[in-house]
Amino acid sequence: MDGPTAQLLERRWGAVLTADVVEYSRLTSLNEEQTYLRYKAHRRELIDPMTAEYRARFVKSTGDGILAEFETALDAVWCAIQVQQQMVERCKGESGDRRIVFRMGLSCGNIIADKEDIYGHDVNVAARLQTVAPAGGIAMTDRVAELVGPSLSLPLEDLGIQKFRNMCLPVRVFQCRVLGEVAS
Amino acid sequence: MDGPTAQLLERRWGAVLTADVVEYSRLTSLNEEQTYLRYKAHRRELIDPMTAEYRARFVKSTGDGILAEFETALDAVWCAIQVQQQMVERCKGESGDRRIVFRMGLSCGNIIADKEDIYGHDVNVAARLQTVAPAGGIAMTDRVAELVGPSLSLPLEDLGIQKFRNMCLPVRVFQCRVLGEVAS
Repeated sequence: MDGPTAQLLERRWGAVLTADVVEYSRLTSLNEEQTYLRYKAHRRELIDPMTAEYRARFVKSTGDGILAEFETALDAVWCAIQVQQQMVERCKGESGDRRIVFRMGLSCGNIIADKEDIYGHDVNVAARLQTVAPAGGIAMTDRVAELVGPSLSLPLEDLGIQKFRNMCLPVRVFQCRVLGEVAS
Repeated sequence: MDGPTAQLLERRWGAVLTADVVEYSRLTSLNEEQTYLRYKAHRRELIDPMTAEYRARFVKSTGDGILAEFETALDAVWCAIQVQQQMVERCKGESGDRRIVFRMGLSCGNIIADKEDIYGHDVNVAARLQTVAPAGGIAMTDRVAELVGPSLSLPLEDLGIQKFRNMCLPVRVFQCRVLGEVAS
Protein backbone atom coordinates (compact mmCIF):
# COMPACT_ATOMS: atom_id res chain seq x y z
CA MET A 1 0.00 0.00 0.00
CA ASP A 2 2.99 2.35 0.03
CA GLY A 3 3.63 4.97 -2.62
CA PRO A 4 1.20 5.18 -5.51
CA THR A 5 -1.99 5.02 -3.46
CA ALA A 6 -1.06 8.36 -1.92
CA GLN A 7 -1.77 10.04 -5.24
CA LEU A 8 -5.39 8.92 -5.12
CA LEU A 9 -6.12 11.10 -2.12
CA GLU A 10 -7.88 14.38 -2.66
CA ARG A 11 -5.79 17.16 -1.12
CA ARG A 12 -6.41 20.84 -0.99
CA TRP A 13 -4.88 23.91 0.56
CA GLY A 14 -6.92 24.99 3.54
CA ALA A 15 -6.80 26.83 6.84
CA VAL A 16 -8.16 24.87 9.79
CA LEU A 17 -9.83 26.51 12.77
CA THR A 18 -10.86 24.60 15.87
CA ALA A 19 -12.75 26.17 18.75
CA ASP A 20 -13.99 24.74 22.02
CA VAL A 21 -15.39 25.94 25.31
CA VAL A 22 -12.95 26.29 28.21
CA GLU A 23 -13.95 23.84 30.98
CA TYR A 24 -17.08 22.70 29.16
CA SER A 25 -17.37 19.55 31.28
CA ARG A 26 -17.30 21.64 34.46
CA LEU A 27 -20.00 23.99 33.09
CA THR A 28 -22.10 20.99 32.06
CA SER A 29 -21.66 19.46 35.51
CA LEU A 30 -22.90 22.70 37.09
CA ASN A 31 -25.95 23.08 34.86
CA GLU A 32 -26.33 20.79 31.86
CA GLU A 33 -29.34 22.45 30.24
CA GLN A 34 -28.34 26.08 30.71
CA THR A 35 -24.85 25.33 29.40
CA TYR A 36 -26.34 23.68 26.33
CA LEU A 37 -28.82 26.51 25.70
CA ARG A 38 -26.21 29.26 26.11
CA TYR A 39 -23.65 27.43 23.97
CA LYS A 40 -26.21 26.89 21.21
CA ALA A 41 -27.20 30.58 21.30
CA HIS A 42 -23.53 31.55 20.72
CA ARG A 43 -23.39 29.09 17.83
CA ARG A 44 -26.63 30.24 16.24
CA GLU A 45 -26.24 33.99 16.74
CA LEU A 46 -22.48 34.42 16.34
CA ILE A 47 -20.30 31.50 15.25
CA ASP A 48 -22.44 30.01 12.48
CA PRO A 49 -23.14 33.38 10.79
CA MET A 50 -19.47 34.37 11.13
CA THR A 51 -18.07 31.16 9.59
CA ALA A 52 -20.57 31.63 6.75
CA GLU A 53 -19.51 35.26 6.29
CA TYR A 54 -15.85 34.21 5.94
CA ARG A 55 -16.85 31.49 3.46
CA ALA A 56 -15.91 28.41 5.51
CA ARG A 57 -16.14 25.45 3.13
CA PHE A 58 -16.43 22.86 5.89
CA VAL A 59 -17.90 23.19 9.39
CA LYS A 60 -18.46 20.34 11.82
CA SER A 61 -19.80 20.32 15.37
CA THR A 62 -17.43 18.94 17.98
CA GLY A 63 -20.00 18.99 20.76
CA ASP A 64 -18.68 22.06 22.56
CA GLY A 65 -17.28 23.83 19.51
CA ILE A 66 -16.47 23.52 15.84
CA LEU A 67 -13.90 22.30 13.38
CA ALA A 68 -13.94 24.58 10.32
CA GLU A 69 -11.94 24.89 7.13
CA PHE A 70 -11.39 28.10 5.18
CA GLU A 71 -9.83 28.83 1.84
CA THR A 72 -7.21 31.18 3.27
CA ALA A 73 -5.49 31.71 6.62
CA LEU A 74 -6.71 35.32 6.60
CA ASP A 75 -10.34 34.27 6.34
CA ALA A 76 -9.83 31.88 9.25
CA VAL A 77 -8.01 34.33 11.49
CA TRP A 78 -10.44 37.18 10.87
CA CYS A 79 -13.36 34.89 11.59
CA ALA A 80 -11.66 33.79 14.83
CA ILE A 81 -10.89 37.36 15.93
CA GLN A 82 -14.42 38.59 15.19
CA VAL A 83 -15.91 35.75 17.23
CA GLN A 84 -13.60 36.29 20.19
CA GLN A 85 -14.14 40.05 20.21
CA GLN A 86 -17.92 39.71 20.07
CA MET A 87 -17.88 37.05 22.80
CA VAL A 88 -16.46 39.65 25.19
CA GLU A 89 -19.48 41.87 24.52
CA ARG A 90 -21.97 39.01 24.66
CA CYS A 91 -20.77 37.78 28.05
CA LYS A 92 -20.36 41.11 29.83
CA GLY A 93 -21.80 40.95 33.32
CA GLU A 94 -21.89 37.13 33.49
CA SER A 95 -20.20 35.63 36.51
CA GLY A 96 -16.76 34.24 35.70
CA ASP A 97 -17.37 30.69 36.89
CA ARG A 98 -20.38 30.22 34.59
CA ARG A 99 -19.19 32.19 31.58
CA ILE A 100 -18.77 30.46 28.21
CA VAL A 101 -15.31 31.32 26.85
CA PHE A 102 -13.83 29.89 23.67
CA ARG A 103 -10.20 29.03 22.93
CA MET A 104 -9.12 28.50 19.34
CA GLY A 105 -6.39 26.78 17.34
CA LEU A 106 -5.38 27.69 13.79
CA SER A 107 -3.19 25.92 11.23
CA CYS A 108 -2.94 25.71 7.47
CA GLY A 109 -1.56 23.29 4.92
CA ASN A 110 -2.49 20.60 2.42
CA ILE A 111 -5.31 18.75 4.07
CA ILE A 112 -7.10 15.53 3.17
CA ALA A 113 -10.83 15.95 2.64
CA ASP A 114 -13.67 13.55 1.95
CA LYS A 115 -17.44 13.86 2.09
CA GLU A 116 -17.54 13.33 5.84
CA ASP A 117 -14.59 15.12 7.42
CA ILE A 118 -11.14 16.68 7.04
CA TYR A 119 -7.96 14.87 8.07
CA GLY A 120 -4.20 15.00 8.28
CA HIS A 121 -1.32 16.35 10.31
CA ASP A 122 -2.41 20.00 10.04
CA VAL A 123 -5.90 19.20 11.32
CA ASN A 124 -4.34 17.42 14.31
CA VAL A 125 -2.04 20.40 14.90
CA ALA A 126 -4.97 22.85 15.02
CA ALA A 127 -6.67 20.65 17.63
CA ARG A 128 -3.49 20.59 19.76
CA LEU A 129 -2.96 24.34 19.47
CA GLN A 130 -6.47 24.93 20.71
CA THR A 131 -5.54 23.22 24.00
CA VAL A 132 -2.69 25.68 24.62
CA ALA A 133 -4.57 28.78 23.43
CA PRO A 134 -5.33 31.44 26.03
CA ALA A 135 -8.96 31.54 27.20
CA GLY A 136 -10.68 33.96 24.84
CA GLY A 137 -7.71 33.94 22.43
CA ILE A 138 -6.15 32.11 19.51
CA ALA A 139 -3.02 29.95 19.11
CA MET A 140 -1.61 29.49 15.60
CA THR A 141 1.29 27.89 13.78
CA ASP A 142 4.21 29.99 12.54
CA ARG A 143 2.97 29.40 8.98
CA VAL A 144 -0.35 31.03 9.79
CA ALA A 145 1.39 33.85 11.68
CA GLU A 146 3.61 34.61 8.68
CA LEU A 147 0.64 34.68 6.31
CA VAL A 148 -1.63 36.84 8.42
CA GLY A 149 0.73 38.90 10.59
CA PRO A 150 1.12 41.84 8.19
CA SER A 151 -2.67 42.18 7.89
CA LEU A 152 -3.49 42.15 11.58
CA SER A 153 -3.65 45.13 13.88
CA LEU A 154 -3.31 42.83 16.89
CA PRO A 155 0.11 41.80 18.25
CA LEU A 156 1.18 38.17 17.88
CA GLU A 157 3.25 36.74 20.74
CA ASP A 158 5.89 34.14 19.88
CA LEU A 159 5.53 31.20 22.29
CA GLY A 160 8.53 29.43 20.77
CA ILE A 161 8.89 25.88 19.51
CA GLN A 162 6.65 23.41 21.30
CA LYS A 163 6.65 19.63 21.25
CA PHE A 164 3.26 17.99 21.51
CA ARG A 165 2.78 14.46 22.78
CA ASN A 166 2.67 11.87 19.99
CA MET A 167 3.72 14.37 17.31
CA CYS A 168 7.08 13.79 15.66
CA LEU A 169 7.48 17.36 14.42
CA PRO A 170 7.66 20.27 16.88
CA VAL A 171 5.50 23.33 16.14
CA ARG A 172 6.42 26.98 16.55
CA VAL A 173 3.41 28.60 18.19
CA PHE A 174 2.18 32.17 18.16
CA GLN A 175 -0.74 33.46 20.17
CA CYS A 176 -3.14 36.33 19.76
CA ARG A 177 -4.91 37.46 22.92
CA VAL A 178 -7.61 39.53 21.16
CA LEU A 179 -8.68 42.93 22.47
CA GLY A 180 -10.78 42.90 25.62
CA GLU A 181 -9.98 39.29 26.38
CA VAL A 182 -11.67 37.91 29.49
CA ALA A 183 -9.70 36.30 32.27
CA SER A 184 -9.61 32.50 32.19
CA MET B 1 -33.18 31.48 31.97
CA ASP B 2 -33.42 29.06 34.93
CA GLY B 3 -36.16 26.48 35.33
CA PRO B 4 -38.92 26.45 32.74
CA THR B 5 -36.69 26.67 29.67
CA ALA B 6 -35.25 23.29 30.59
CA GLN B 7 -38.54 21.66 29.67
CA LEU B 8 -38.21 22.83 26.08
CA LEU B 9 -35.20 20.60 25.51
CA GLU B 10 -35.68 17.37 23.65
CA ARG B 11 -34.30 14.54 25.78
CA ARG B 12 -34.20 10.85 25.11
CA TRP B 13 -32.77 7.73 26.66
CA GLY B 14 -29.70 6.64 24.78
CA ALA B 15 -26.44 4.74 25.05
CA VAL B 16 -23.38 6.66 23.89
CA LEU B 17 -20.34 5.00 22.35
CA THR B 18 -17.16 6.89 21.55
CA ALA B 19 -14.21 5.29 19.80
CA ASP B 20 -10.86 6.68 18.77
CA VAL B 21 -7.50 5.45 17.53
CA VAL B 22 -4.76 5.01 20.13
CA GLU B 23 -1.90 7.43 19.34
CA TYR B 24 -3.52 8.65 16.14
CA SER B 25 -1.34 11.77 16.01
CA ARG B 26 1.78 9.61 16.23
CA LEU B 27 0.55 7.33 13.42
CA THR B 28 -0.31 10.39 11.31
CA SER B 29 3.14 11.85 11.97
CA LEU B 30 4.74 8.60 10.78
CA ASN B 31 2.66 8.31 7.60
CA GLU B 32 -0.26 10.66 7.09
CA GLU B 33 -1.74 9.10 3.96
CA GLN B 34 -1.39 5.44 4.91
CA THR B 35 -2.88 6.15 8.35
CA TYR B 36 -5.83 7.88 6.71
CA LEU B 37 -6.37 5.10 4.16
CA ARG B 38 -6.15 2.29 6.73
CA TYR B 39 -8.40 4.13 9.20
CA LYS B 40 -11.01 4.75 6.49
CA ALA B 41 -10.92 1.09 5.46
CA HIS B 42 -11.71 0.05 9.05
CA ARG B 43 -14.56 2.55 9.10
CA ARG B 44 -15.99 1.48 5.74
CA GLU B 45 -15.57 -2.28 6.09
CA LEU B 46 -16.18 -2.77 9.80
CA ILE B 47 -17.36 0.14 11.96
CA ASP B 48 -19.98 1.72 9.70
CA PRO B 49 -21.69 -1.61 8.84
CA MET B 50 -21.56 -2.66 12.52
CA THR B 51 -23.13 0.54 13.87
CA ALA B 52 -25.84 0.17 11.22
CA GLU B 53 -26.42 -3.47 12.19
CA TYR B 54 -26.94 -2.47 15.82
CA ARG B 55 -29.33 0.30 14.73
CA ALA B 56 -27.28 3.33 15.84
CA ARG B 57 -29.59 6.34 15.55
CA PHE B 58 -26.79 8.88 15.45
CA VAL B 59 -23.22 8.51 14.17
CA LYS B 60 -20.70 11.33 13.80
CA SER B 61 -17.09 11.31 12.66
CA THR B 62 -14.60 12.60 15.21
CA GLY B 63 -11.68 12.55 12.79
CA ASP B 64 -10.01 9.43 14.16
CA GLY B 65 -13.15 7.70 15.36
CA ILE B 66 -16.87 8.06 15.97
CA LEU B 67 -19.44 9.28 18.41
CA ALA B 68 -22.53 7.07 18.15
CA GLU B 69 -25.82 6.77 19.98
CA PHE B 70 -27.85 3.58 20.35
CA GLU B 71 -31.29 2.89 21.71
CA THR B 72 -30.04 0.47 24.35
CA ALA B 73 -26.81 -0.15 26.26
CA LEU B 74 -26.84 -3.74 24.99
CA ASP B 75 -26.87 -2.62 21.35
CA ALA B 76 -23.95 -0.29 22.06
CA VAL B 77 -21.85 -2.81 23.97
CA TRP B 78 -22.38 -5.61 21.46
CA CYS B 79 -21.46 -3.29 18.63
CA ALA B 80 -18.29 -2.28 20.53
CA ILE B 81 -17.31 -5.88 21.31
CA GLN B 82 -17.87 -7.04 17.72
CA VAL B 83 -15.71 -4.21 16.38
CA GLN B 84 -12.89 -4.83 18.88
CA GLN B 85 -12.89 -8.59 18.26
CA GLN B 86 -12.81 -8.18 14.49
CA MET B 87 -10.05 -5.57 14.73
CA VAL B 88 -7.78 -8.23 16.23
CA GLU B 89 -8.31 -10.39 13.15
CA ARG B 90 -7.98 -7.50 10.72
CA CYS B 91 -4.65 -6.34 12.12
CA LYS B 92 -2.95 -9.70 12.58
CA GLY B 93 0.62 -9.57 11.38
CA GLU B 94 0.87 -5.77 11.34
CA SER B 95 3.82 -4.32 13.23
CA GLY B 96 2.80 -2.98 16.64
CA ASP B 97 4.09 0.55 16.14
CA ARG B 98 1.96 1.09 13.01
CA ARG B 99 -1.14 -0.85 14.00
CA ILE B 100 -4.48 0.93 14.25
CA VAL B 101 -6.06 0.05 17.62
CA PHE B 102 -9.30 1.52 18.93
CA ARG B 103 -10.23 2.32 22.52
CA MET B 104 -13.87 2.90 23.41
CA GLY B 105 -15.99 4.61 26.05
CA LEU B 106 -19.61 3.75 26.84
CA SER B 107 -22.25 5.50 28.91
CA CYS B 108 -26.02 5.79 28.97
CA GLY B 109 -28.62 8.24 30.23
CA ASN B 110 -31.02 10.97 29.21
CA ILE B 111 -29.17 12.85 26.53
CA ILE B 112 -29.91 16.11 24.75
CA ALA B 113 -30.22 15.76 20.99
CA ASP B 114 -30.71 18.20 18.16
CA LYS B 115 -30.38 17.98 14.39
CA GLU B 116 -26.62 18.43 14.51
CA ASP B 117 -25.23 16.57 17.51
CA ILE B 118 -25.84 14.95 20.91
CA TYR B 119 -24.96 16.70 24.17
CA GLY B 120 -24.95 16.50 27.93
CA HIS B 121 -23.13 15.06 30.90
CA ASP B 122 -23.39 11.45 29.74
CA VAL B 123 -21.90 12.28 26.34
CA ASN B 124 -18.97 13.99 28.09
CA VAL B 125 -18.56 10.96 30.37
CA ALA B 126 -18.31 8.55 27.41
CA ALA B 127 -15.57 10.74 25.91
CA ARG B 128 -13.63 10.71 29.21
CA LEU B 129 -14.02 6.96 29.65
CA GLN B 130 -12.58 6.41 26.19
CA THR B 131 -9.33 8.05 27.34
CA VAL B 132 -8.91 5.52 30.18
CA ALA B 133 -10.05 2.47 28.18
CA PRO B 134 -7.45 -0.22 27.52
CA ALA B 135 -6.10 -0.28 23.96
CA GLY B 136 -8.38 -2.64 22.07
CA GLY B 137 -10.93 -2.61 24.90
CA ILE B 138 -13.93 -0.76 26.32
CA ALA B 139 -14.47 1.35 29.46
CA MET B 140 -18.04 1.86 30.68
CA THR B 141 -20.01 3.44 33.51
CA ASP B 142 -21.44 1.31 36.32
CA ARG B 143 -24.91 1.99 34.88
CA VAL B 144 -23.93 0.40 31.58
CA ALA B 145 -22.19 -2.48 33.37
CA GLU B 146 -25.33 -3.23 35.42
CA LEU B 147 -27.52 -3.21 32.33
CA VAL B 148 -25.34 -5.38 30.12
CA GLY B 149 -23.34 -7.50 32.57
CA PRO B 150 -25.79 -10.41 32.80
CA SER B 151 -25.89 -10.71 28.99
CA LEU B 152 -22.15 -10.69 28.37
CA SER B 153 -19.91 -13.72 28.29
CA LEU B 154 -16.88 -11.47 28.85
CA PRO B 155 -15.71 -10.53 32.34
CA LEU B 156 -16.06 -6.90 33.45
CA GLU B 157 -13.32 -5.56 35.70
CA ASP B 158 -14.29 -2.99 38.34
CA LEU B 159 -11.80 -0.08 38.17
CA GLY B 160 -13.44 1.68 41.11
CA ILE B 161 -14.67 5.23 41.45
CA GLN B 162 -12.71 7.71 39.35
CA LYS B 163 -12.71 11.49 39.44
CA PHE B 164 -12.23 13.18 36.07
CA ARG B 165 -10.90 16.70 35.72
CA ASN B 166 -13.63 19.33 35.51
CA MET B 167 -16.39 16.86 36.37
CA CYS B 168 -18.21 17.42 39.64
CA LEU B 169 -19.54 13.86 39.91
CA PRO B 170 -17.13 10.91 40.17
CA VAL B 171 -17.80 7.92 37.91
CA ARG B 172 -17.51 4.23 38.80
CA VAL B 173 -15.74 2.63 35.86
CA PHE B 174 -15.76 -0.92 34.56
CA GLN B 175 -13.60 -2.20 31.75
CA CYS B 176 -13.91 -5.03 29.28
CA ARG B 177 -10.69 -6.17 27.68
CA VAL B 178 -12.32 -8.19 24.82
CA LEU B 179 -11.00 -11.61 23.78
CA GLY B 180 -7.76 -11.61 21.88
CA GLU B 181 -6.95 -8.01 22.75
CA VAL B 182 -3.73 -6.68 21.28
CA ALA B 183 -1.02 -5.10 23.41
CA SER B 184 -1.10 -1.30 23.56
